[in-house]
Amino acid sequence: MIKAAILGYGTVGSGVAALIDQNSAEIRRSVPEGIEVKYILDLRDFPDSPYRDRMVKDVNVILEDPEIKIICETMGGKGAAYQFSKAALEKGISVCTSNKELVAAFGPELMATAAAHHCSYLFEASVGGGIPLLRTLNTGLSQENITRVAGILNGTTNYILTKMNRDGADFDTVLRRAQELGYAERNPEADVEGHDTARKIAIITSLISGRTARYEDVPCEGITKIDRMDFACAAALHAEVKLLGLCEKDGDGRYAVITAPFLVPEESLLAPVQDVFNGVLIHGTMVDDVVLIGRGAGRDATASAVVSDVIDAARHPGETVPCPWKGGDPMPLVPVAEQKRRFLVRVPAAEAGLAAQLFGAVRPVAAESGAARPAFGENGKSQPEQKEEYAFVTPVLSEGEFAKKAGEFSSVHRIRLLDPDMV
Amino acid sequence: MIKAAILGYGTVGSGVAALIDQNSAEIRRSVPEGIEVKYILDLRDFPDSPYRDRMVKDVNVILEDPEIKIICETMGGKGAAYQFSKAALEKGISVCTSNKELVAAFGPELMATAAAHHCSYLFEASVGGGIPLLRTLNTGLSQENITRVAGILNGTTNYILTKMNRDGADFDTVLRRAQELGYAERNPEADVEGHDTARKIAIITSLISGRTARYEDVPCEGITKIDRMDFACAAALHAEVKLLGLCEKDGDGRYAVITAPFLVPEESLLAPVQDVFNGVLIHGTMVDDVVLIGRGAGRDATASAVVSDVIDAARHPGETVPCPWKGGDPMPLVPVAEQKRRFLVRVPAAEAGLAAQLFGAVRPVAAESGAARPAFGENGKSQPEQKEEYAFVTPVLSEGEFAKKAGEFSSVHRIRLLDPDMV
Repeated sequence: MIKAAILGYGTVGSGVAALIDQNSAEIRRSVPEGIEVKYILDLRDFPDSPYRDRMVKDVNVILEDPEIKIICETMGGKGAAYQFSKAALEKGISVCTSNKELVAAFGPELMATAAAHHCSYLFEASVGGGIPLLRTLNTGLSQENITRVAGILNGTTNYILTKMNRDGADFDTVLRRAQELGYAERNPEADVEGHDTARKIAIITSLISGRTARYEDVPCEGITKIDRMDFACAAALHAEVKLLGLCEKDGDGRYAVITAPFLVPEESLLAPVQDVFNGVLIHGTMVDDVVLIGRGAGRDATASAVVSDVIDAARHPGETVPCPWKGGDPMPLVPVAEQKRRFLVRVPAAEAGLAAQLFGAVRPVAAESGAARPAFGENGKSQPEQKEEYAFVTPVLSEGEFAKKAGEFSSVHRIRLLDPDMV
Repeated sequence: MIKAAILGYGTVGSGVAALIDQNSAEIRRSVPEGIEVKYILDLRDFPDSPYRDRMVKDVNVILEDPEIKIICETMGGKGAAYQFSKAALEKGISVCTSNKELVAAFGPELMATAAAHHCSYLFEASVGGGIPLLRTLNTGLSQENITRVAGILNGTTNYILTKMNRDGADFDTVLRRAQELGYAERNPEADVEGHDTARKIAIITSLISGRTARYEDVPCEGITKIDRMDFACAAALHAEVKLLGLCEKDGDGRYAVITAPFLVPEESLLAPVQDVFNGVLIHGTMVDDVVLIGRGAGRDATASAVVSDVIDAARHPGETVPCPWKGGDPMPLVPVAEQKRRFLVRVPAAEAGLAAQLFGAVRPVAAESGAARPAFGENGKSQPEQKEEYAFVTPVLSEGEFAKKAGEFSSVHRIRLLDPDMV
């Protein structure tokens, strides 16, 4: 039996322990000697847990046991999780983690430590929950020149946007409901402001480029300003509003990365990704589009991803599972002002003429009236209960040009379009 | 440089050569020493090919060159492809193939040969084209107890069904158009009769069970009898008609496998898989549903999958990439007569009473009238231009029971439902 330890018996950690027990037969198909959880580190007491005999409070019991080959770090945070991971890797113990904060902040350093000590630092569970996304990028698609990844990478915000769209409800109302249901944290900032998605698309960009993309360099906009009128406009354009992490490689090999709400065409394979599901569209020059969809969060799905890493580590004893992300200095990303796309724009109705003057051939959006949602009437003018607005889609232009022109209006609200030819 | 050879310079083989050239930088991220195609075996002459200097007509040139570590078998068929693959593996040369016929027929034998000679027999490209499906089952989801795989695994038939649905056209008309466009073979039997899908779901079943599922044991029904009325009924039930390969594990660990047209609910993540795309829904007890979508065929997508195997083989020199499919005696599958599900049934209108008598609580289907398609009117009765039919959905029952009851009607047409609770 290959002996493993779990650091942190919280939601994910308890799921890992349960999965390794329940699916021992399946695991033995890949790792014939089997995998056993020998220790679980947690400062709390769990007198009723079936694993109470394996609980320890001192990490050194684990680190000093030469039988331990693999650690699952399911603690979270960047303090003790970092220290314990580093110490384990220095002893040649592979670490499998669901901690995207730590990966985004210290991934290259910890991978280098692993490589120096002939073990692995693996983090499938840090992006896309149960979707086998990182392993697909690293193995199944490692032959590809990947020129675009567009991902719905945060289940909380996708749930909120789905509910807002279906029920015609406001952001605040849906957020409260999501918090009551446990789908959103009491402090939802990391989710709704897009930081979680930014961390994940930074990790993806690092994997497909081989160089470190810092999440602090990813322009990031959340969903807090999305309102019902946005959904009415989206419906008129046969599109859905989705919070995306988007990474695009240009002809010079530079990467343009952004996290923001986007209009995704209804016929896109990302459009049916609803509720707490995550979905990722990967474009390679040979394979064309590949789409992966699954549960982006939750105890069991996340635990499943952690255990897929445990199996990978167990299959490669005494060696480092290869990873295309080689670390090194952070890679400069295409500045947001240079990123080019189209925008759906809402301005005061009185400034419709200015829109045509500034943007040239704009496409007015006459949002359909719906029972549940206030909407535009004919000619893109809003219904009487709303302030009079004029909505239009711009031609392709850079974010910098757009920002300059937008400054001319007395008020502007905009959402980006995923595809330039979608309307 | 790791030296490889390609057997067969047809569509897929030429794609493999091109990909290894064009994406050499990407490949070096995974295989730092790089991969080079040293030989291409083909009996034809290609005087204008950029690879003309590497063309050989005698396989022994390849097999006797100790530099060759990997072969891509893109010949097809079960004759020379089998002999050459076997001979290569016996020399410790790994073989990567797109030849699903050969894998379905001789997969376990060739894998055993590979294991005995410390090399690998890999066949990602044999199922799902460019979708990294088999690698995901073998690695990313190897920790899962997979209880269901439902796949749209044949691009030709999915294209035909998509066109029939969109255009309200007949099977024969659409098939002819698909043949003109090169989407269907001149002899389309393997596709439209479901044999290709049956081979693929047999391979998938073997991988998730670890035991050989023979494709000859998979009950197989094609799409040649699907008519426009089926689409009208599907629309009334908010469903799509899809040719599926379906594998389900029951509580006793037995596998029920079938290839047939199914009604898939519109909200299923398989429903948006249109045209020549393939899509696979995998259900694991921990990860829940994971869906993979991509191009199931075509030169570049298939070549991409072959090269993903070449990289895997190159990363594991002198060893066998582990595969959960261990071969051995064929596994008995759940007989089709014992498989349980619901059915959409069309019988002569005069026999509506018999339907209620035989099946109990049936759900009549009042298909909506559409401009392009002849359809049922109210009460499930067909329009005057059609023969009068009564359409209904049965409760859950076994295929055996269904067949017995169906024999009581003067004529019966039926399609299976994917989910028992969909209507």
